[in-house]
Amino acid sequence: MSTSLIVRRDLDFLLHDWLKIESLAAQQRHADLTRESVDAMLDLSEKLAREHFLTHYKRADVEEPRLDADGVHICPEVTQALRQYAEVGLFSAGFSPDLGGSGLPYLLTSASFAYFAAANVATSGYAMLTVANARLIVSFGSSAQIETFARPQIDGRWFGTMCLSEPQAGSSLGDVRTRAEPAGADELGERYRLTGNKMWISGGDQDASENIVHLVLAKVPGADGRLPEGTAGLSLFIVPKILPDGSRNDVGVAGLNHKMGYRGTANCLLNFGEHGGAIGWRVGQPGLGLMQMFQMMNEARIGVGLGAAALGYRGHRLSVTYARERLQGRAIGVRTGAPVPLIEHADVKRMLLAQKAYAEGALALCLYCAKLVDEEGNAGSAELLGLLTPVAKTWPSEYGLAANDIAIQIHGGYGYTRDFDVEQLLRDNRLNPIHEGTTGIQAIDLLGRKILRDSGRGMAELGRRMIDTTARSQGVPEFAPHAAALKRAVTQINDSLAPLRQQVANAAFDNATPFLWAFGHVVVAWLWLEQAVAARSLDVKTTDERTFIDGKLRACRYFFECELPKIDAWLGVVASRTDVASGAPPEIF
Amino acid sequence: MSTSLIVRRDLDFLLHDWLKIESLAAQQRHADLTRESVDAMLDLSEKLAREHFLTHYKRADVEEPRLDADGVHICPEVTQALRQYAEVGLFSAGFSPDLGGSGLPYLLTSASFAYFAAANVATSGYAMLTVANARLIVSFGSSAQIETFARPQIDGRWFGTMCLSEPQAGSSLGDVRTRAEPAGADELGERYRLTGNKMWISGGDQDASENIVHLVLAKVPGADGRLPEGTAGLSLFIVPKILPDGSRNDVGVAGLNHKMGYRGTANCLLNFGEHGGAIGWRVGQPGLGLMQMFQMMNEARIGVGLGAAALGYRGHRLSVTYARERLQGRAIGVRTGAPVPLIEHADVKRMLLAQKAYAEGALALCLYCAKLVDEEGNAGSAELLGLLTPVAKTWPSEYGLAANDIAIQIHGGYGYTRDFDVEQLLRDNRLNPIHEGTTGIQAIDLLGRKILRDSGRGMAELGRRMIDTTARSQGVPEFAPHAAALKRAVTQINDSLAPLRQQVANAAFDNATPFLWAFGHVVVAWLWLEQAVAARSLDVKTTDERTFIDGKLRACRYFFECELPKIDAWLGVVASRTDVASGAPPEIF
Repeated sequence: MSTSLIVRRDLDFLLHDWLKIESLAAQQRHADLTRESVDAMLDLSEKLAREHFLTHYKRADVEEPRLDADGVHICPEVTQALRQYAEVGLFSAGFSPDLGGSGLPYLLTSASFAYFAAANVATSGYAMLTVANARLIVSFGSSAQIETFARPQIDGRWFGTMCLSEPQAGSSLGDVRTRAEPAGADELGERYRLTGNKMWISGGDQDASENIVHLVLAKVPGADGRLPEGTAGLSLFIVPKILPDGSRNDVGVAGLNHKMGYRGTANCLLNFGEHGGAIGWRVGQPGLGLMQMFQMMNEARIGVGLGAAALGYRGHRLSVTYARERLQGRAIGVRTGAPVPLIEHADVKRMLLAQKAYAEGALALCLYCAKLVDEEGNAGSAELLGLLTPVAKTWPSEYGLAANDIAIQIHGGYGYTRDFDVEQLLRDNRLNPIHEGTTGIQAIDLLGRKILRDSGRGMAELGRRMIDTTARSQGVPEFAPHAAALKRAVTQINDSLAPLRQQVANAAFDNATPFLWAFGHVVVAWLWLEQAVAARSLDVKTTDERTFIDGKLRACRYFFECELPKIDAWLGVVASRTDVASGAPPEIF
Repeated sequence: MSTSLIVRRDLDFLLHDWLKIESLAAQQRHADLTRESVDAMLDLSEKLAREHFLTHYKRADVEEPRLDADGVHICPEVTQALRQYAEVGLFSAGFSPDLGGSGLPYLLTSASFAYFAAANVATSGYAMLTVANARLIVSFGSSAQIETFARPQIDGRWFGTMCLSEPQAGSSLGDVRTRAEPAGADELGERYRLTGNKMWISGGDQDASENIVHLVLAKVPGADGRLPEGTAGLSLFIVPKILPDGSRNDVGVAGLNHKMGYRGTANCLLNFGEHGGAIGWRVGQPGLGLMQMFQMMNEARIGVGLGAAALGYRGHRLSVTYARERLQGRAIGVRTGAPVPLIEHADVKRMLLAQKAYAEGALALCLYCAKLVDEEGNAGSAELLGLLTPVAKTWPSEYGLAANDIAIQIHGGYGYTRDFDVEQLLRDNRLNPIHEGTTGIQAIDLLGRKILRDSGRGMAELGRRMIDTTARSQGVPEFAPHAAALKRAVTQINDSLAPLRQQVANAAFDNATPFLWAFGHVVVAWLWLEQAVAARSLDVKTTDERTFIDGKLRACRYFFECELPKIDAWLGVVASRTDVASGAPPEIF
């Protein structure tokens, strides 16, 4: 039997037994949702991911996109896979029927996407960006813009990009210098001529889609011809590669970035307006570009986390297969007889259990957040989603990567070769702590915008849900120590925050990253307890089912025994308000 | 100014101010050692590493060794660099004058090697293996063997390999199946015909040296024609690629391994004896092969740690340079004005300080152990070296790698491209937790052979030296909390060991890896306090010197405030004697 991309029983457990996806059918827009429709979607996704995405995982890593006078050429299997993805309606799955979609909840399209990211994150990247781009136009664009630029993406005929960064403006978008000069208006809205350079543009050019829709953050100069400072002057523009009249827009590929991983995704430096200005249409009101981007950011960030979780998950499954098959060594002290499978060794089991806790914990976190997206109308859900988004972005990025690192270790020397997938999984996953906001940026977002400067509703909602979990776990003796540990951890988090609430703004952020680490571990511990409670409440009909439940319970126990205690060291740093790093004079380095 | 490979002031500090290298001149064999001779060696090494090793770091990664009918061809710059290395006498530097060497202490050749590993670990690998091979022959071979096989390696004309692993026998050397049939004797000793496959052979073939000396672990069949079980039947054989009569030996290259990193080092699957048996000469007594290898293992393992430390160190230096030059963002809350260098941001300083603590801590650990090699005659030194060797192998491998991971993060998107060296440094370093005994194997070695089954002399010597350090630090108020924390940590270590000493053998190893992590952190904390005490006692003559001392003191403080507290979680796992991992039934995965 081949190795699972994502274990279907696990996904069924998360969606049905734990998150009760069918409860979303109570919402008018998801009235058609049934167990059967969910099953069909997952069946389709798994099959397509395995047959059309996994198959060129290695090849697209080796045969990188290349640039010639005609533009960027990508591996033909990537194009073929994305055509299949369009054909079965996966670009449109999450859009409402009036836009040609199937109106599936975000939770379900996320579960579907996990298969594709596990199989081939670089090829899936084109789809993720296209869907995000179309969703942004649907949210903020005019009907003409939606019809012209979003619909072909929803159909999967055109692909989309997000053009935010510039060579000199990565995390600091206020420093964007791309310039948009007003140039009249037409049925597509206010027209502009754009000039500037955009860096790190995934899918910036390729030969897979009929057209490419770039969403570009740029600034409109003031009366004095100067660009406004900071992020307030940013507006959002639609800049297609090919204009509606069929002519080429003034968008050039200055070069391809050659990356450590994610190599199947063409990543470009784009030049806008080298020949007079690229034509673009403004989306929504001027000056709201970053706000519009941020409204979409929750989903993009959960998408990054989900991709990272899927990569970690696949590394775990490959490790399990390898550890069952590879014979090496014997029990300690035994020197003769046949060698045993790796999976018999205590230290290998420790590594597999850590991977399981990381990969399944990360997937659970991302799907939990995806369900919050579907619940955004509910009181508290939106605030909780805001609070958990930096965690959903970073925790899977850091611990999915850790799971990939362990996968190499379990495979030993073989894992270090390119004959196995695990080294590529690590290279691919290494991008995730960087893009869509680095871990350090997420830490400031969590501590600043989502906690210290927030009304407190996100934290209050989290607290309520945690209390609910511990209440449901209290009847079960084996969960009592976990529930107690979770309560203690929440108290520690709150205690470490207390002095920060009084402290001057900047120093409060000195140890934002250790705070994020601790906060992330507490959230994941809570979700492991959630999973354990859900698993414990299942009817046990078969041995397989018993084993599945045992696995969930053991991973939960591992997390509480071996992982949660790590927060003491991190919160100790936060509580001490040490300036050992922030106060270091730069010249000591 | 270009970025340092290893900061010279730091190396001078470690060798002179801290480890008092000149005190080795008291040993007869190092009577010539002076400050000037040490300086000259370091000057030479730095210059050669920069001019001949660093220059092809990228190229040798891209142009991998290739195999054709003539054998393996490697990048010509690698050959050229190793010729230079031979020409200036670096292969021979550590050998005694009667073997054509300079008789330099291991501490000094290690410091020299750090430059080469930082510049190009893959090219340096050929030199490291050759020296280790020659040293083994010198230790255990006959004079004829030394003259014939070690001398040309000491001259750097021939290179050497270590042939231990086989496709089915990686960590488990008792399962080696390579067969050595007696075939007479000659002036080089007992002759054998060897047949078998050897995997992961670095430098297994190449076109850089005139000949290759393989040191091969193999088993001599018993009277019944069967190979003995376990490691007791392993003997060591010299199997040259080209025989003394100039004919080719029966050693074939079955294939090259294509690795994640370390690509400049040709890594081969070798077939011995496909055409009747490769001719080999036994080294020393039969059945002592593994013991002979192990006697050399201390140095090989410190060598791995040193390479890992050097890779982490170089990543740190590149990060410092990048963080000083790259302008991005502003202080929190500031939205206008010019962007500031990355190094101004608290979170970047946190990352740089962690790197510094890891990289400089790892280098200090390896050089400390190198000095123990030079002191091996002293009471306690040999036992302490045995105890610290698994730490010197693993801690730099894990934390040098962590420093390389941080280097990518500091470089952001640029660090993820192959235009910068940091992604390659990480790929190169990822080998180090695997080869020469994985982290899990080292953990068992530490806890079992070096602690539970040892006479206790290693631990006693460590305890004595730690008490000496805390005594020397007690007068300085800023060190008092560190000294107290170190004492507490030692107590925690001893407390966690107490129940293991009574426990049945196998279960004692259930959490050997978390124990190793904690033990490693305590050792490095101690060595940071050692460094801080040494730095504090320096005369401060210049601002640069003041800044250097401040850097050491701050990194020490960082380690005690932010790193040492992590041991609580790891030792908590050890002390609880949890079987959460070891007791997991394999089917739950």
